[in-house]
Amino acid sequence: MKYNIAVIPGDGIGPEIIGEARKVLDKVGMVYGHDFQYTNVLMGGISIDTHGVPLTDEALETAKNSDSVLLGAVGGDVGNSKWYDVAPNLRPEAGLLAIRKGLNLFANIRPAYLYKELSDACPLKQEIIGDGFDMVIMRELTGGLYFGERHTKEVDGVMTAVDTLTYNENEIRRIAVKAFDIAMKRRKKVTSVDKANVLDSSRLWRSVVEEVAKDYPQVMLSHMLVDNCAMQLVMNPGQFDVILTENMFGDILSDEASMITGSIGMLSSASMNESKFGMYEPSHGSAPDIAGKNIANPIATILSAAMMLRYSFDLDMEASAVESAVEQVLKEGYRTADIYSEGCKKVTTAEMGDLIAKRI
Amino acid sequence: MKYNIAVIPGDGIGPEIIGEARKVLDKVGMVYGHDFQYTNVLMGGISIDTHGVPLTDEALETAKNSDSVLLGAVGGDVGNSKWYDVAPNLRPEAGLLAIRKGLNLFANIRPAYLYKELSDACPLKQEIIGDGFDMVIMRELTGGLYFGERHTKEVDGVMTAVDTLTYNENEIRRIAVKAFDIAMKRRKKVTSVDKANVLDSSRLWRSVVEEVAKDYPQVMLSHMLVDNCAMQLVMNPGQFDVILTENMFGDILSDEASMITGSIGMLSSASMNESKFGMYEPSHGSAPDIAGKNIANPIATILSAAMMLRYSFDLDMEASAVESAVEQVLKEGYRTADIYSEGCKKVTTAEMGDLIAKRI
Ligand SMILES: CC(C)[C@H](C(=O)O)[C@@H](O)C(=O)O
Ligand SMILES: CC(C)[C@H](C(=O)O)[C@@H](O)C(=O)O
Repeated sequence: MKYNIAVIPGDGIGPEIIGEARKVLDKVGMVYGHDFQYTNVLMGGISIDTHGVPLTDEALETAKNSDSVLLGAVGGDVGNSKWYDVAPNLRPEAGLLAIRKGLNLFANIRPAYLYKELSDACPLKQEIIGDGFDMVIMRELTGGLYFGERHTKEVDGVMTAVDTLTYNENEIRRIAVKAFDIAMKRRKKVTSVDKANVLDSSRLWRSVVEEVAKDYPQVMLSHMLVDNCAMQLVMNPGQFDVILTENMFGDILSDEASMITGSIGMLSSASMNESKFGMYEPSHGSAPDIAGKNIANPIATILSAAMMLRYSFDLDMEASAVESAVEQVLKEGYRTADIYSEGCKKVTTAEMGDLIAKRI
Repeated sequence: MKYNIAVIPGDGIGPEIIGEARKVLDKVGMVYGHDFQYTNVLMGGISIDTHGVPLTDEALETAKNSDSVLLGAVGGDVGNSKWYDVAPNLRPEAGLLAIRKGLNLFANIRPAYLYKELSDACPLKQEIIGDGFDMVIMRELTGGLYFGERHTKEVDGVMTAVDTLTYNENEIRRIAVKAFDIAMKRRKKVTSVDKANVLDSSRLWRSVVEEVAKDYPQVMLSHMLVDNCAMQLVMNPGQFDVILTENMFGDILSDEASMITGSIGMLSSASMNESKFGMYEPSHGSAPDIAGKNIANPIATILSAAMMLRYSFDLDMEASAVESAVEQVLKEGYRTADIYSEGCKKVTTAEMGDLIAKRI
């Protein structure tokens, strides 16, 4: 079958890691008889350089008309890049926010798990890690403080800035349903994270999540305050299966969760709409400091492509083949610089892509 | 001299740990010739049980008329307590929010550092800890999402909840000044944490903080996004001296920071107004599960009393005496259950208080 994939290399290491993911997808196509067609889309700094804006309407349209989107990373070095000498809505990251909203990608799925082979890089002690951990953060991505009304103006001669955190029951319900659906395929545990002792939006969140939970009697639901969750991630990460939370809390907690794995270069993510359409991207950023050096780790992007095969194209077998190839290569001791430890074989970005593609 | 201290034992382990802090203060009074007078104030669950509300106007007045406030902890077991079967503004924690606002305690100072003697309990690996870490979180405490307008109502038949995040330049300036003042007495580094790539309030925050920084040419200021900070705390806590941030981010980050020390039972905190008035309390909660068992760790509360001596009463020598006594007792190997490890001497709450008082 033919699949039209909008590919957004973006900035920094984006083009390099996307190149390796395409390499792997092409191999999957060859072996399993699929035809992956790629359309290049500009977003972020490179779009600013070319068109003066981080995402053009045409670029968004191209993404919309594709079967799925594969994204590298956007953004540059904030302190040292002309991209940031402009209004916030013209900066590279604004393209990311615009495409999330424009494609209605409300469900951001970020897995965070410990690679046994890489547990040396985990910042947590062995007593804390125990038998390892394996969680998914389900972050609401198109609501809350990110997309609420905001303004800055003088009030009685004093500069005052306002942001608004809004959620309605439909927005909460649809992300909760996604979280429970994923939990059903996993260890059947949802931890919904909010600040219900302070926020109205959190109290509505809690009540809608409890309503949704009634349709999933097999799933164990618990609620946790966001400050407590930030502590629990460090003290006992193994307790989590699916963490369900709103946009800003999800931003903070998913980064914390990815960091405790010690292998952020390995973590993929998906952002989905109501149907099977999704945008797939590594959890890490554009790492401008190592761009163009052929040393970035392409695995997070390759695993994001695997997520795409599974979630958007229903190609479970093909997705598993990619995941197994990654595992295989790690078992054989191949490592990019970010995950290298003594006794392993250090490889470049391109070599890592080749090694994985070869094992499919 | 005579000092009038409003004492709020609160709920759970609150009364026990407050008892030990008073024991220590009394010893300080005896040795150094001060007269500490205590007025008991009800707040939290115990106030609900007695007066039907978590904080009465009279209680707030008593606190206002004191020279400083010493607080144990408020709140119960959310799932299992009648205190939570009511509207949020009638729950124990609402008393805490009301007294913060009522006393204008906008500057919340939460130190988080590693006790060399207790580094076994730190969840982070030795490579991450390095030479240890010692930071102070300066959290804005009376603005932002905590005290913005909020409501929940039907909009076009859909339940919708709104919270508002507001900051004006004066609110930002006064907390920034406190942070820079503290940095001047420490390692002269301020990391201001915000989400300036998304929020208007964060952009105002950043610009006001930069303005304040001009008055402190010796202090090194840097900005960090909140999601990145959540990662950096786990990967490289040693980089931080003073973290300056708004209310909600401070709630999350200060809990994460306290957890990576592994000794949350040891961490004190202060909440100050413009002048020297402050409310002092342990960073940990009311721990209802261990209440009344004489096993809680009173050290965080005792160190909070030391902060009170230093910040509100200018009794530096006395504060240092308390801190040294705590260190002494730890060096001698005495431990409450929460920080106990093999080879140490396990003591009760009351014994720990006695041991510390005796060494002053
Ligand atoms: C770049 C930024 C706007 C974005 C966010 O906050 O969502 C990023 O941190 C992320 O988590 O994808
Ligand atoms: C109890 C709660 C309202 C409070 C807060 O969020 O400020 C607590 O978590 C804290 O950090 O002191």
